Amino acid sequence: MPAAVPLAEIVAALGGELLGDAEISIERLAPLDSADGRSLSFLANPKYASQLASSGAACVIVSPSLSDAVAARRSAIVTPDPYLYFARLTQWWAQRRRAAPAAGVHPSAVIESGAQVDARASIGALAYVGAGAVIGAGAVVGTHGHVGPRARIGEASRLAPRVTVGEECVVGARAIIHSGVVIGADGFGFAPDPDGQWQKIEQLGVVRIGDDVEIGANTCIDRGALDDTVVGNGVKLDNLIQIGHNVRIGDHCAMAGCVGIAGSAKIGRYCTAGGGAIILGHLELVDHVHITAATVVTRSILKPGQYSGLFPFDDNASWEKNAATLRQLHSLRDRLRALEKKS
Amino acid sequence: MPAAVPLAEIVAALGGELLGDAEISIERLAPLDSADGRSLSFLANPKYASQLASSGAACVIVSPSLSDAVAARRSAIVTPDPYLYFARLTQWWAQRRRAAPAAGVHPSAVIESGAQVDARASIGALAYVGAGAVIGAGAVVGTHGHVGPRARIGEASRLAPRVTVGEECVVGARAIIHSGVVIGADGFGFAPDPDGQWQKIEQLGVVRIGDDVEIGANTCIDRGALDDTVVGNGVKLDNLIQIGHNVRIGDHCAMAGCVGIAGSAKIGRYCTAGGGAIILGHLELVDHVHITAATVVTRSILKPGQYSGLFPFDDNASWEKNAATLRQLHSLRDRLRALEKKS
Amino acid sequence: MPAAVPLAEIVAALGGELLGDAEISIERLAPLDSADGRSLSFLANPKYASQLASSGAACVIVSPSLSDAVAARRSAIVTPDPYLYFARLTQWWAQRRRAAPAAGVHPSAVIESGAQVDARASIGALAYVGAGAVIGAGAVVGTHGHVGPRARIGEASRLAPRVTVGEECVVGARAIIHSGVVIGADGFGFAPDPDGQWQKIEQLGVVRIGDDVEIGANTCIDRGALDDTVVGNGVKLDNLIQIGHNVRIGDHCAMAGCVGIAGSAKIGRYCTAGGGAIILGHLELVDHVHITAATVVTRSILKPGQYSGLFPFDDNASWEKNAATLRQLHSLRDRLRALEKKS
Repeated sequence: MPAAVPLAEIVAALGGELLGDAEISIERLAPLDSADGRSLSFLANPKYASQLASSGAACVIVSPSLSDAVAARRSAIVTPDPYLYFARLTQWWAQRRRAAPAAGVHPSAVIESGAQVDARASIGALAYVGAGAVIGAGAVVGTHGHVGPRARIGEASRLAPRVTVGEECVVGARAIIHSGVVIGADGFGFAPDPDGQWQKIEQLGVVRIGDDVEIGANTCIDRGALDDTVVGNGVKLDNLIQIGHNVRIGDHCAMAGCVGIAGSAKIGRYCTAGGGAIILGHLELVDHVHITAATVVTRSILKPGQYSGLFPFDDNASWEKNAATLRQLHSLRDRLRALEKKS
Repeated sequence: MPAAVPLAEIVAALGGELLGDAEISIERLAPLDSADGRSLSFLANPKYASQLASSGAACVIVSPSLSDAVAARRSAIVTPDPYLYFARLTQWWAQRRRAAPAAGVHPSAVIESGAQVDARASIGALAYVGAGAVIGAGAVVGTHGHVGPRARIGEASRLAPRVTVGEECVVGARAIIHSGVVIGADGFGFAPDPDGQWQKIEQLGVVRIGDDVEIGANTCIDRGALDDTVVGNGVKLDNLIQIGHNVRIGDHCAMAGCVGIAGSAKIGRYCTAGGGAIILGHLELVDHVHITAATVVTRSILKPGQYSGLFPFDDNASWEKNAATLRQLHSLRDRLRALEKKS
Repeated sequence: MPAAVPLAEIVAALGGELLGDAEISIERLAPLDSADGRSLSFLANPKYASQLASSGAACVIVSPSLSDAVAARRSAIVTPDPYLYFARLTQWWAQRRRAAPAAGVHPSAVIESGAQVDARASIGALAYVGAGAVIGAGAVVGTHGHVGPRARIGEASRLAPRVTVGEECVVGARAIIHSGVVIGADGFGFAPDPDGQWQKIEQLGVVRIGDDVEIGANTCIDRGALDDTVVGNGVKLDNLIQIGHNVRIGDHCAMAGCVGIAGSAKIGRYCTAGGGAIILGHLELVDHVHITAATVVTRSILKPGQYSGLFPFDDNASWEKNAATLRQLHSLRDRLRALEKKS
């Protein structure tokens, strides 16, 4: 790990207006409440401004509106968007502290003949690269990774240990794919036969993933039935998400953990979904639709906005009474109507 | 990949009545809306019949009721159940285009002594087969697969890369098991001790899976506590499903992604569950019960039919008003009663 | 497997008062309804006492209140907490029947230089241990396991096949971690830039897991953004659970399958959550809070107790009528008010 970093060096690299002592050495990035005299912290939400006074941070990144509030501190960095500045700082910080994997193929990896592995790519221990697969410059296939026959991994994409990319699937440039992800398993497609048994519909499409996509641990993206499943540029998916076959996700969407998107749903650009939300199959969401956590989307949404549908939780006794009454709601409405007619 | 296939060859293999030009060459299977002059498509749902006119497909599979509607097209295949025909067509198509893995054990695989691997089975790179395990004829254990001690994989079953089948678990014939599946992890069983700490109940049963079962990526099926967890013949499970210990799933059930079935639930035959549905533990569902997506089944269901219980979603403002009122529902009922008494 | 065990030997090891024939040989543990003349069974819930008469079990573990009810049986073990006794019995039973993995490193495993593997630890086939990692005495890393650089696995912890423990993460003593678990993937953190694109916040914290923790198959625990994600002692997590970055889970909590806990939530000690429950981010739950299955916790809970919020399921037709009316609930309330004013 590199030694402590003077504030001046950080500002030289990332910009911002430095107030106070530029010679302070920063040893770690920390939240306001646990920061100490060697920590750099940030304040993204003005409603936490009261924490500024009590925080032990050596330096705090703030917006111009808080310049006065930090005047008494030993140092501060002023920038229009402290959260975005902080994000870039973490990237700069990580790049200095985390060694990039060395280029080359680990001797324990299995590379089938006909695979094209760029000389600047890194193939980890016990990984597998199938025949005809293409691994781009600077790409990393982690330990126990599986890149199927004729699959393609774009430049500078990083596959954590134990990622599976199926036959002929395509991952763009600069992807970050976490452990346990399965790209290109068969979609769920069956036709019932006259005996009520399920006949498999072979899944003949692939998965195509754009550039700058991040995919969380144990998330699954199924291959298309006939056409492909498509994930746009800049999409961010959290852990344990299920993306069905033939789904299309527009650029720059972000989905939190445990989301499920059923087959052939078409999601616009800049959409978000909270944790555990479900979008049923064959629906369309336009751009800029935001789905609240645990909400089940049962029809298309053609107007941007926030949509919700979760049962409010309560202490168990109150919930039980209300839930029981909910089963009579329709008849309550009828009784109300009857009263209205009478009165 | 094989060259283009004349329609006549398809009909010779799969049946159906061919109308029009039997010499057309088919290069791909495609949905109606993206099909071109070298594509074979299908129309399963009569409500999309209007797409017949605009589709560029070389040939369309239709039901007899649409024979007239396709008379003007260059060719069509008429069959009583176009969707089922299409399913069989994808199987036939995939078999011609996808090479079966070669029989034999990859040199990088680890086979413990005492394992019985049929000479016609295929064990992929970096896979592991434990002592006493039995791998049937034509079975495939994909790369990074794990078949635990004394586990059994039936004839012609295909385990995708990175599947785990635990100690002594049994998979029947012709299974398709996708990447990341875990069969035979411990069920979740603990007894509280007087200090409120959890004492593990060792899980002494196994998982037994019937024939013709398909299991989606990252799905988990836990081993039984004392008796076994049992999945019947012909069952189809999608991705990221959780099957608790001692669950019994009857033949020919189908469950969509993210379903959870808690311990000791007993599911009848021919049941289905939509994505994200939850079935609580120790319940019984009779045959032919269908659970809507995201529904939580909290008591046994002894009558076939469709069951639902999901909160209708709405724009956020409307939802907020209704959800807040829901917390007062029981008292609204009381107020309604009071009015009724008065009137 | 060892031969049959005389009852007397079981009681000598585990205590309890043995009534009846101490010479009976036990060959298996079984539930009351499938127990036979060589089975040892237990009755934890007095409401199933009627099964005592019909069960074929050679011996039943019961509480003192049922001593009379078993007097006519060939044998019984009387103990204050039959379920806890049974849990300990399964542990004793499993230990006798399941061989512990031999200490040592499998020749196919890859151990990076600088890793410290205790001589009494077992590293399975095709596993990987990174530079600077520490594997404690008696610990087991299963086949295809991945222990990242500088990660630590405590004494006697058992990692099933195919577990991933990321760089610098820490697992305490006596953990049981099931297949497919991912500890230490990046948390889900991004800052929007002015173009609506997501800038990654590098996740610089780790995961720290206490002693005596069990983690179910395919569960994910993300590393912290700046501080760490912390799982307390004695915590039990079921399968397919998502734990976001910077979550803190207090000692002796238990969470059922498919639970999701969003980033920075702080859970007290002795809490439980039923299957599919969701706890949103930045909330706090005090000790002894119990969340019903499929409930979404949307605000902090500062009082111990049981909390619920799931939509009651019904036959589809009834649900449809009530769900449709639910969308008008707020206006129904207004109409009720209007009537009340009139009357």
